[in-house]
Amino acid sequence: MTIDPVKQADLRVALGERSYDIAIGPGLLSRPDAYAGAIHGRRVLIVTNDTVGPLYQQTVADALAAAHDVDVLALPDGEAHKTLGTLNLIFDRLLEGNYGRDACIVALGGGVIGDIAGFAAASYQRGIDFVQLPTTLLAQVDSSVGGKTGVNHALGKNMIGAFHQPTRVLIDVDVLETLPPREFAAGMAEVIKYGLIRDSDFFDWLEANMEAINAREPALLIEIIRRSCANKAEVVVADERETGQRALLNLGHTFGHALEAELGYGTWLHGEAVAAGMCMAADTARRIGWLDGAQVERIERVIAAAHLPTAPPAELESTRIRALMARDKKVKAGELRLVLMHDIGAAVVTGAHGEALDATLNHYFGH
Amino acid sequence: MTIDPVKQADLRVALGERSYDIAIGPGLLSRPDAYAGAIHGRRVLIVTNDTVGPLYQQTVADALAAAHDVDVLALPDGEAHKTLGTLNLIFDRLLEGNYGRDACIVALGGGVIGDIAGFAAASYQRGIDFVQLPTTLLAQVDSSVGGKTGVNHALGKNMIGAFHQPTRVLIDVDVLETLPPREFAAGMAEVIKYGLIRDSDFFDWLEANMEAINAREPALLIEIIRRSCANKAEVVVADERETGQRALLNLGHTFGHALEAELGYGTWLHGEAVAAGMCMAADTARRIGWLDGAQVERIERVIAAAHLPTAPPAELESTRIRALMARDKKVKAGELRLVLMHDIGAAVVTGAHGEALDATLNHYFGH
Repeated sequence: MTIDPVKQADLRVALGERSYDIAIGPGLLSRPDAYAGAIHGRRVLIVTNDTVGPLYQQTVADALAAAHDVDVLALPDGEAHKTLGTLNLIFDRLLEGNYGRDACIVALGGGVIGDIAGFAAASYQRGIDFVQLPTTLLAQVDSSVGGKTGVNHALGKNMIGAFHQPTRVLIDVDVLETLPPREFAAGMAEVIKYGLIRDSDFFDWLEANMEAINAREPALLIEIIRRSCANKAEVVVADERETGQRALLNLGHTFGHALEAELGYGTWLHGEAVAAGMCMAADTARRIGWLDGAQVERIERVIAAAHLPTAPPAELESTRIRALMARDKKVKAGELRLVLMHDIGAAVVTGAHGEALDATLNHYFGH
Repeated sequence: MTIDPVKQADLRVALGERSYDIAIGPGLLSRPDAYAGAIHGRRVLIVTNDTVGPLYQQTVADALAAAHDVDVLALPDGEAHKTLGTLNLIFDRLLEGNYGRDACIVALGGGVIGDIAGFAAASYQRGIDFVQLPTTLLAQVDSSVGGKTGVNHALGKNMIGAFHQPTRVLIDVDVLETLPPREFAAGMAEVIKYGLIRDSDFFDWLEANMEAINAREPALLIEIIRRSCANKAEVVVADERETGQRALLNLGHTFGHALEAELGYGTWLHGEAVAAGMCMAADTARRIGWLDGAQVERIERVIAAAHLPTAPPAELESTRIRALMARDKKVKAGELRLVLMHDIGAAVVTGAHGEALDATLNHYFGH
């Protein structure tokens, strides 16, 4: 598979009256026409954080100024602030400003901002419009698409939230120029995930092009984002509220969420935990007999080439990780369910293969 | 219209895959078959308050015990506790107890419990099942039907929430025996409302039967609840997310919410504020020329017969009430919209008739 340099890609997420477009390209944030049709009322509240805001909020406000009244709310940056308390700061601002049901929230930032601003839009007056302007690779290829919104609880990540689709997603690849290397790598974990769960051609292509991707060549950035979003959109359209195959998008996440919780949120980035989690899932699949050793090595090699961890920290305890995994949203009738690969590009949701899982946990951790 | 004594009435709210049944009758809370089919998983959390819980939670738990693992969470009673903070107590319990996405919340109480427990069900893991067991007349004829859930914010009532339909509503009329007279009357405000907005036959019937209703004759209780729920269900089915005619259910509420906020939540009951608000709406409609004086008098007479106020407290200030009314969720592009009657049984949503509204506010209040 070769890549023709493209200037812009557009995708449509076809969800009936909740359908929306994803635009991917350079310089989108500053283009008034990129927002046209996605914001129905006059008033707009840009919700951002104090890291991203200073870089781009003026650009966005200027692009919207001709057609809208624009205000900005900058939240403190970081996963630690993805709480009900921070959510309430958005409600405070909306209510102090007398925003009506025809207001629109524009989420400018990474996954934390998209999730919390999206949940505010879902809940304010039982639902107002919102637009996603993701500024990290992770948010661009994953969290900004699909309508999952929410906040964390002290006892679990993303445990409180709503399904609420944006009216548009604008993915401006120029913002990736300033993204720190560790955050770029964290986004690549989700990119690789799409190859592993349902797109082996994409996995092959990633394997062959990782060097150019790491160099952030624009045409390749657009391609990895387009292909990732296309994969995600197909899954979401088939199963918007995660009653079935949407759970495949959780490959590596049951392990990863447990790692994040045990290490303390923010110690490892979400993508780093997912990367290690995907390697753990590959290990479990090998123990069941679904993957062979060569495939597992290949997976680990691609993940390592993206500058991501291929194993969790060895000092953790398996009993604690196991207990945290039991909090997973895929648990049904008390039984843990995992996303595991039958093959590269072919994942399934499966009831716990208890022995294989135990062996994996014992392989990576102490007791 | 005469009433045949009925033992039980059943209604269906036809919302596609979100359809559900409303059962109305005596002794429903204690009947295991009444819950059958509405609770899909094993685990149930009854959410109630410390007033209603002691009266009925054991009855409900016993009815569910054969088929489910049941736990109870009793919240502090009262509108003052309908907050994000109290909501979080429900999330705490669900997460501490490792409740999965297949758990069910059973809301046992009045409108506050139904709204907050329903919003918890809407938001926990982005949505779990819930069953409504309304224990006040107000909740039975209004808030338990239609899927509106939410909490209050210091700057506005019901400003944070979700549309989330229950899987069943069980309306046990026996619980009305212990309902204080003032709360019974407050529920009657919403009953009268259905007559005023869309069902003039029902209004006539209420006018003729108010004495027997106030005596809480069981057959009449079942009839007022059935007729109210049927009216509400028809409106909700036509407009689940309130983009159009569902707003008619807000007759008297734009005035009423402002009264509640200005008096301090809990000073007047919601139904009392709505009753006064409906009289104010009738006054505005008369000033426009839609209702005549005789109709307004008739409306006031029925509301008074239900032991409800026909006017707001005169010591309030019109400028403050006006400002609070501007927070209404029906405000669009900055313009206030009101629900007003063209006739008894025929309400419409209308752009502000500024002069008539001003005259109404000046009639009831100082400046």
